[in-house]
Amino acid sequence: MRPAHLLPHYLLPHHDGSPLYVSTQAPMLGDTVTVRLRIPLTFGDVTMVRTRSNPDREPRFDEARPIGSTGAGDDGYAWWAADLVVENPVHGYRFLLSLADGSHCWLNASGLHDIETLDAEDFKLVAHPAPPDWAATSVMYQVFPDRFARSAAAGQRQAPDWAMPAEWDDAVDQLPPGRSHQFYGGDLDGITEHLDHLERLGVTLLYLTPVFPGRSNHRYDASGFAEVDPLLGGDPALIRLVEAAHARGLQVIGDLTANHSGDGHEWFQAAHHTPDAPESSFYYWLDPEQHDYMSWLGVPALPKFNWTSPELRRRFIDGPDSVAARWLKPPFNLDGWRIDVANMTGRLGDDDLNAEVRQTIRRTMIDVNPDTILLGEFTNDASGDFQGDAWHGAMTYANFTRPLWSWLARPDPVSSFFGLPLGSIPAHTGEQFHRAHTRFAAGFPWRTRLATMNALDTHDTARFRTHADAEAVPVAVGLSVTLPGIPVVFAGDEFGLVGVDGEHSRTPMPWGSAAEPAVAATIDLYAELIGLRRSHEALSTGGLRWFHVGDDALVYVRESEQETVLLLAARAAADVTLPGWVLPVGGGAGAVPPEVGTAVATVSDAGLRLVATGASFTAWVLPGVTIPPDAHLVSPRGLAR
Amino acid sequence: MRPAHLLPHYLLPHHDGSPLYVSTQAPMLGDTVTVRLRIPLTFGDVTMVRTRSNPDREPRFDEARPIGSTGAGDDGYAWWAADLVVENPVHGYRFLLSLADGSHCWLNASGLHDIETLDAEDFKLVAHPAPPDWAATSVMYQVFPDRFARSAAAGQRQAPDWAMPAEWDDAVDQLPPGRSHQFYGGDLDGITEHLDHLERLGVTLLYLTPVFPGRSNHRYDASGFAEVDPLLGGDPALIRLVEAAHARGLQVIGDLTANHSGDGHEWFQAAHHTPDAPESSFYYWLDPEQHDYMSWLGVPALPKFNWTSPELRRRFIDGPDSVAARWLKPPFNLDGWRIDVANMTGRLGDDDLNAEVRQTIRRTMIDVNPDTILLGEFTNDASGDFQGDAWHGAMTYANFTRPLWSWLARPDPVSSFFGLPLGSIPAHTGEQFHRAHTRFAAGFPWRTRLATMNALDTHDTARFRTHADAEAVPVAVGLSVTLPGIPVVFAGDEFGLVGVDGEHSRTPMPWGSAAEPAVAATIDLYAELIGLRRSHEALSTGGLRWFHVGDDALVYVRESEQETVLLLAARAAADVTLPGWVLPVGGGAGAVPPEVGTAVATVSDAGLRLVATGASFTAWVLPGVTIPPDAHLVSPRGLAR
Repeated sequence: MRPAHLLPHYLLPHHDGSPLYVSTQAPMLGDTVTVRLRIPLTFGDVTMVRTRSNPDREPRFDEARPIGSTGAGDDGYAWWAADLVVENPVHGYRFLLSLADGSHCWLNASGLHDIETLDAEDFKLVAHPAPPDWAATSVMYQVFPDRFARSAAAGQRQAPDWAMPAEWDDAVDQLPPGRSHQFYGGDLDGITEHLDHLERLGVTLLYLTPVFPGRSNHRYDASGFAEVDPLLGGDPALIRLVEAAHARGLQVIGDLTANHSGDGHEWFQAAHHTPDAPESSFYYWLDPEQHDYMSWLGVPALPKFNWTSPELRRRFIDGPDSVAARWLKPPFNLDGWRIDVANMTGRLGDDDLNAEVRQTIRRTMIDVNPDTILLGEFTNDASGDFQGDAWHGAMTYANFTRPLWSWLARPDPVSSFFGLPLGSIPAHTGEQFHRAHTRFAAGFPWRTRLATMNALDTHDTARFRTHADAEAVPVAVGLSVTLPGIPVVFAGDEFGLVGVDGEHSRTPMPWGSAAEPAVAATIDLYAELIGLRRSHEALSTGGLRWFHVGDDALVYVRESEQETVLLLAARAAADVTLPGWVLPVGGGAGAVPPEVGTAVATVSDAGLRLVATGASFTAWVLPGVTIPPDAHLVSPRGLAR
Repeated sequence: MRPAHLLPHYLLPHHDGSPLYVSTQAPMLGDTVTVRLRIPLTFGDVTMVRTRSNPDREPRFDEARPIGSTGAGDDGYAWWAADLVVENPVHGYRFLLSLADGSHCWLNASGLHDIETLDAEDFKLVAHPAPPDWAATSVMYQVFPDRFARSAAAGQRQAPDWAMPAEWDDAVDQLPPGRSHQFYGGDLDGITEHLDHLERLGVTLLYLTPVFPGRSNHRYDASGFAEVDPLLGGDPALIRLVEAAHARGLQVIGDLTANHSGDGHEWFQAAHHTPDAPESSFYYWLDPEQHDYMSWLGVPALPKFNWTSPELRRRFIDGPDSVAARWLKPPFNLDGWRIDVANMTGRLGDDDLNAEVRQTIRRTMIDVNPDTILLGEFTNDASGDFQGDAWHGAMTYANFTRPLWSWLARPDPVSSFFGLPLGSIPAHTGEQFHRAHTRFAAGFPWRTRLATMNALDTHDTARFRTHADAEAVPVAVGLSVTLPGIPVVFAGDEFGLVGVDGEHSRTPMPWGSAAEPAVAATIDLYAELIGLRRSHEALSTGGLRWFHVGDDALVYVRESEQETVLLLAARAAADVTLPGWVLPVGGGAGAVPPEVGTAVATVSDAGLRLVATGASFTAWVLPGVTIPPDAHLVSPRGLAR
């Protein structure tokens, strides 16, 4: 065996969690699941394949069986299959390959290894309740309600005492107190009135940042969860929005902060200075009189919840009468939650109740409507909490957003790079992008990867376009709609908006510019790439294999039995030949027309040549992958799902 | 900055958990701890250093301060320091270095990185109760009582019904039923009578595999915990052994199986077929009549404990009257426990009570005698459970034993390599040894590394000598006494015993051969290398830096303020020059005499040249490391400890 790090990625054995390789996406404890391994015929003489499971943390090896080969030559693969009994709710496994020369190697979620590998990077079967199928096929559109659109009624409302009213085209005030109090007055009916825009883009999932009343424009300092902020139109406006969205096939999720409330919250108000209040147990008090308290990063306006309180759980997250349940039920019918500051929730000093809190939230959601999704904010290495016991996916920047910027943005000086004090945006190669993406994705179960947010930016960050040339936008959006994960459009990105930080990025939507050619072209670009995603399910749920990882170009496929989508992401001119690899194009030599994008693909005796004349994102759609029939299948239930 | 992977290890910034770099080994929650970073002056122009902590899983960056430099040129270092408040019981941190060229890099327990790193590989401060200081300075001697020595009384005892009595020089029967029932009749007084041998070796910690009655020679199928097996001499013999050991400064730990009992155990006997027995809750029954039950890997003789039972906890591990407590108290006074099958304990299906069980055991131990140690068997990737909340160290093969064999043993065909179905012993390079060691050690807090067992083999494995040439033995033992961790001698290794698997390795000690020249030389070799370990505390608690990682040779130092111990481990002839690196040898050019071993070290203008003419292990003792004074120290408490 040649050392794996010297081999091109497409010549390595491959497995991932997709249906090509795993017989069910939703196993239950005790089920038998068939897993498959695909080995290029050119890789070497593999004489034996075993799976290594780790039930109760004691390794167990099972023999895989060869089930035949497909293709020939450089496009030929030997397939192996093994049947695994799911013994724990998260069942890790890896492959051990023995070669004819006496050597062996291991394959896990981080790749091929010549030494033993870590449990955390095992592939994983997850027997916890599965996310709805629509999670992985979603395309998210994120709306910050104060800045999206005003309905006619918005103009009639009186601004509250804390607010600093702004005109829609005023500049965003980046400094306190304006940055939290500047009030544009967007409302929910404003969103409802613009659902045409969402449909034009092709997004399927509307994510609303908080809609409960607060004392800020962002409303992350909730003062109560009993009603929708009247400034947004109140409960009726939310009902109208969700109904209108559902009528168009759009789903809608809300945003709850489980780590803290606002200091204006009714629960906090009841308990502050009032030790005998029933809500006293909801917070961490620093003195018996309950004057001082723990808060989020020391910000007094955001007192931290104490989840040891059963009454807090009951009111907020546990059971059908809780806040977490109420808004998922009629008449509101939200389709799920994104949980703010999920990473810190329940954690303080030697308290760590995070698992209990997140599992309780999900259990409650399943009780009232299992067809809902639960996303958690965890902006860095999220793998520890995202093993499938509650959060379906992460709003994180570690595996996609920061690697993306580091490859595609200019190395501009910045005071903070998504919270990292780097001084400038990193100037990374495509190899570093690939390595960082793989490092932070390898710890996730496959279905967590599929439901994790691929955002270019959010309401908490600078906007990508601020630091990236226009040519980089299709590359970035292309990656977001074709790598595993939920593509995210933060409202305004499709208008080419910029913003230097999370405050500045909360720019009111410039609706009036939609018809300007440059803006219209950007909207069309988003619509085209989202359309690509939605018209090829392999881009949502298919397997991922890498074919070229260079400084300036990445080539990969998403693939299923139905189709193979070949992607070239180039940040500059690129000329990549995959020598000897013959695409399943059927018709022999000649050009292969792209589905989107401008790069040119040509098949010849030399292989497949992909040429991009500049920054570009190109997709080619090819036939799917054939799995050899397997006479030994033991798990009809698993295969039927 | 040159890419880190192109730089020799000694030219990289360095930090580890040792006292050179961390102001206390036993911080408490809320303490301020000073951490230091040491950067070779040749590394590059580092303009800023920050620590990245992760309190409550939310990253926080603190600025480090330069505290001056030491040495000059290639032996010159810039030192930085930062003060960290320990905010969680396991407080992860890493370093972010900014360089003058605008680049940055991260340093964590797995090394230097040009991309972001995983939380699991952070350095860690641990605020859980610390292990006793003697844990890290121990040298362990493992005894399997049936096979160690017979006292005069042993010959008088009647073999039990299950036993197949054997003469001391009979061959070990590797097949059932003999492998568990062959009975040599070694006893505890036999051990007491041979403590001179332990003193000759210089070991400090005697680890006894189980001494409670069972129906096997290994006694891992305990039938009760109320008394020491009369076949071993009963309670009085244990008291005599521990008293005699303590009188010589030796500590003694026992062995408990927390995952299962024997089917002959009084608890199991009481509950089997008896649903109304108080002990019914102790096991996992498969039918209401309690005929069938879950057991360890399906072996009916070893029924699995059900730790959801409060009564099981009370009797076995919780509180001063429990089994775990009783044997640590007078008159027995054991110095701790090694827990068998710690990895599976409390785990079955969707039950996972492992953390509660291990933490309860340790809490109980602290109550009755905090000056005790707790080791857990976890033969593969142990990092998940070994974060310092209970287990002090792991009996594992992933970070030391298997990498060691893979580098030093012959690539002999084997049916199993420590449970891995590899077909033959891997033939790895020194680079692979280093990489595997680092990969599996990086997840441990430093103090867990120091208390983790560096075994060449154990009662569960083949013996190293079976597959290694005699020349490899000093190299292997040398690595075990100089890499972080507790060196382990499995009784008989020092006699040159062989064994092809865990059963075969349980060879009776060939006391009569001790005077044979080859055996005496091996015993002397062990004594010399253990003596090296014990006479230089840096080998127990000092920092670890690597200087050369080649196919056939490894060069590293363990270092403290008091001393630097330079180690060369060579499996074949080696000639390594560390160009430009000047050791702190004081006297200029010339030969540096070794403390042990035969390799030759010469200092010249070309640097330090180490020459080994064949497989060998050599140590040189040099002056210690100077830490620049730091005017900003804020933590008198931390520094005083």
